[in-house]
Amino acid sequence: MFPASSSVKQEVSSTTRMEKLVSLAKRRGFIFQSSEIYGGINGFWDYGPVGVELRNNIKKFWWDEMVRLREDVVGVDTSIICHPKTWEASGHIDCFSDPMVDCKVCKGRFRADQLQDIPCPKKPSLSVQSCAVEKKGPGELTEVRQFNLMFETYVGAVRDDSARAFLRPETCQSIFTQFKNIQIVSRQKIPFGIAQIGKSFRNEITPRNFIFRSREFEQMEMEFFVRPEPAEGEKWYEYWVEKRFQWFLDLGVKSNRLRKRVHAKDELAHYAKGCTDVEYEFPFGFSELEGIANRGTWDLSQHMKFSGKDLSYFDDETKDKYVPAVVETSLGVDRTLLTVLADAYGEDQVDEEPRTVLRFAPHIAPYKAAIFPLSRKLSEPALKLEKELRRRFTVDFDDVGSIGKRYRRHDEIGTPFCITYDFESENDHQVTIRNRDTTSQERVAISQVENYLADKLSAGLAK
Amino acid sequence: MFPASSSVKQEVSSTTRMEKLVSLAKRRGFIFQSSEIYGGINGFWDYGPVGVELRNNIKKFWWDEMVRLREDVVGVDTSIICHPKTWEASGHIDCFSDPMVDCKVCKGRFRADQLQDIPCPKKPSLSVQSCAVEKKGPGELTEVRQFNLMFETYVGAVRDDSARAFLRPETCQSIFTQFKNIQIVSRQKIPFGIAQIGKSFRNEITPRNFIFRSREFEQMEMEFFVRPEPAEGEKWYEYWVEKRFQWFLDLGVKSNRLRKRVHAKDELAHYAKGCTDVEYEFPFGFSELEGIANRGTWDLSQHMKFSGKDLSYFDDETKDKYVPAVVETSLGVDRTLLTVLADAYGEDQVDEEPRTVLRFAPHIAPYKAAIFPLSRKLSEPALKLEKELRRRFTVDFDDVGSIGKRYRRHDEIGTPFCITYDFESENDHQVTIRNRDTTSQERVAISQVENYLADKLSAGLAK
Repeated sequence: MFPASSSVKQEVSSTTRMEKLVSLAKRRGFIFQSSEIYGGINGFWDYGPVGVELRNNIKKFWWDEMVRLREDVVGVDTSIICHPKTWEASGHIDCFSDPMVDCKVCKGRFRADQLQDIPCPKKPSLSVQSCAVEKKGPGELTEVRQFNLMFETYVGAVRDDSARAFLRPETCQSIFTQFKNIQIVSRQKIPFGIAQIGKSFRNEITPRNFIFRSREFEQMEMEFFVRPEPAEGEKWYEYWVEKRFQWFLDLGVKSNRLRKRVHAKDELAHYAKGCTDVEYEFPFGFSELEGIANRGTWDLSQHMKFSGKDLSYFDDETKDKYVPAVVETSLGVDRTLLTVLADAYGEDQVDEEPRTVLRFAPHIAPYKAAIFPLSRKLSEPALKLEKELRRRFTVDFDDVGSIGKRYRRHDEIGTPFCITYDFESENDHQVTIRNRDTTSQERVAISQVENYLADKLSAGLAK
Repeated sequence: MFPASSSVKQEVSSTTRMEKLVSLAKRRGFIFQSSEIYGGINGFWDYGPVGVELRNNIKKFWWDEMVRLREDVVGVDTSIICHPKTWEASGHIDCFSDPMVDCKVCKGRFRADQLQDIPCPKKPSLSVQSCAVEKKGPGELTEVRQFNLMFETYVGAVRDDSARAFLRPETCQSIFTQFKNIQIVSRQKIPFGIAQIGKSFRNEITPRNFIFRSREFEQMEMEFFVRPEPAEGEKWYEYWVEKRFQWFLDLGVKSNRLRKRVHAKDELAHYAKGCTDVEYEFPFGFSELEGIANRGTWDLSQHMKFSGKDLSYFDDETKDKYVPAVVETSLGVDRTLLTVLADAYGEDQVDEEPRTVLRFAPHIAPYKAAIFPLSRKLSEPALKLEKELRRRFTVDFDDVGSIGKRYRRHDEIGTPFCITYDFESENDHQVTIRNRDTTSQERVAISQVENYLADKLSAGLAK
């Protein structure tokens, strides 16, 4: 009745691939534009029912691997708004900015390094640059000024400089300012790490590439504190570059679209000893997913200088006191989610019809299984099975449309297994389980479905 | 060697109880003041290593009960900054404010309804009210003005009214604005719910009571959409009041400190049909934990009016079209965490010495077990056991100080089981497992520890 079909891979051009991803993400409830009914707000996104499950699975996998399964890393969850002095010490108030120009004629404000790409609001056929610099239009540009990318707000009832605060542009700085508190309560000894998952905000002038560069995003950062001798920093930096690269493979991302890019000396901040990006080949080209950086003692030293507080560490065994150096690993939840969406995306043919499928690794798939009654007359026993499975797995129940259409829907959500309860099930106490990737089908005893799923899901883990 | 001791309950006065809680929360790494090294920032808090585990356990328990285990509720995760028109429709721009006055002499700004409690900055021995109203000091107050509690910021490069945006003061409004998208992709039929966990911000003039009223906090909200007939709203409102009250009991909160408070007619918003708070008796008195509200069709109607978009629902079975009514359940992660901290807090005597203990329900305890080698010479086999347990449970390893001191530390963290690997363990392949609540001890075969913990932890669930 549901014959297994052979899969034929088909090329998807990279130019339309991104549009298809965005369309699928909305159609199936992964990602919506924020505030769509009000015309949207540029650079902000909402995650729908399956998007939030995928996000949660990615965050849990990171937390498990980086915190729960390690003796030498502890977690923290700090506030998005913190004392503004934090951003003086970190350098964000002075240096976290883009160059901007204003046009005195059209009153527009533009990024000085992108003038050739931006249409003049009063002469859309011309770029701002050609209007202003080549005198072809109304433009007359001011000198370049620096525009800080931190969102500002005021805390408390009075709006003056003393009340000015910022939405954090990265989660790591509070790890540094709380280093001493956390080290004391956790009784960790160097080397050890502090990890955090949380929202950050950057007032990007030109948000772009879907959720890749947005104004509100979530980060997963870990600061690993080590002795200040250069060899220690180097050793742990190399360790974390390998470890973090492997994490993406374990997430199910295909290795031929992942690469490491070592920063050249002239790309590094003056204090940095080394930095490697993990990059993924998106439809719009290779782009940074995660940065692993050997940052030396810069971070804690800056906060010591600006706070006047001692953040040094006393080593019980060697009896010496020092400011620890830091190896940082930093990636975005949203970029990781875009990566697994793009990487899982496939088009093939099933029963001579084109099919779109998300081939997520089972451990991050939003639903592990979907349960279908062949007819609404069979809803009751199918729901009974669904209720049993739901205690252990995240599952969906679907009784609308033909079985073929339900398969297609769950292929597009990336559900590894679809389970159909049919009229024969009443007699043989078996159901048909269909595999997302091979489209092959098996009859399995109802009493064995839970074990079947548990086995298949854990075997599908990339380790 | 570790004799079991009898517990004697001791009264803790409510005045000092709060101070003790705050002190313990910092000492053991649950909660720190944000940006402590810079002198702190009022109304913002950071969660330390055990605090973040407790938060995550609370959030997971809510998500499991409200989303994962239910066929009729789906999740969502929307942005903190959304289109500002959202807050016109919701009424927050016009009505979400506190009354404020300025003093023309001292330049201070104060809540008009708290003047008698606030010291005059220039005459701290007098209240602002007595300075200004009773003419005893320098004060001269302006007329009362409304101060909006939403944090403001600007999105994009230009700072004018068109770029003004807000940090959301509640998570629910994006559930309403995305109602149609979510209903379509999830194919849910009314009645069904949409749930969300996420940060919200309120620029409170006087943050107070530790993490109870802070400026940045996290909410767990669910909007349940029902037919607009009053009987439907009433039925589901009653259902959710009972369901949500039971959730706190299942969380392990003691019923004699929980109560329901039904709002009087004159407390209700003009559109609201009914509202019940779940309150907990904190050291500072009974205070609201959660609100369950029968809101009628107000929310969706407002967003239809302000967006011009149709958010009504077509009922396939009855073939009628209507604007759904809403029953809302809304609580704070931070308040829930403060509740379980306060509720778990106890003082008793063990071995004739005073002990402080957090008697968390096992399923929300930050660590499920702690593993101690009696001597550092035994670290290797103890770590081997710890590594095995860590694959399944969140555990801690502690080899510093006497076993008695390690018990006390984990009593204050609320760890249900402490496992000591001693010299005898080498021969009899057993370890001593000590129960946090009874302080009784058992010898258990090392090969059986994992099963022992799994059994005891699940039996400890409040269901």
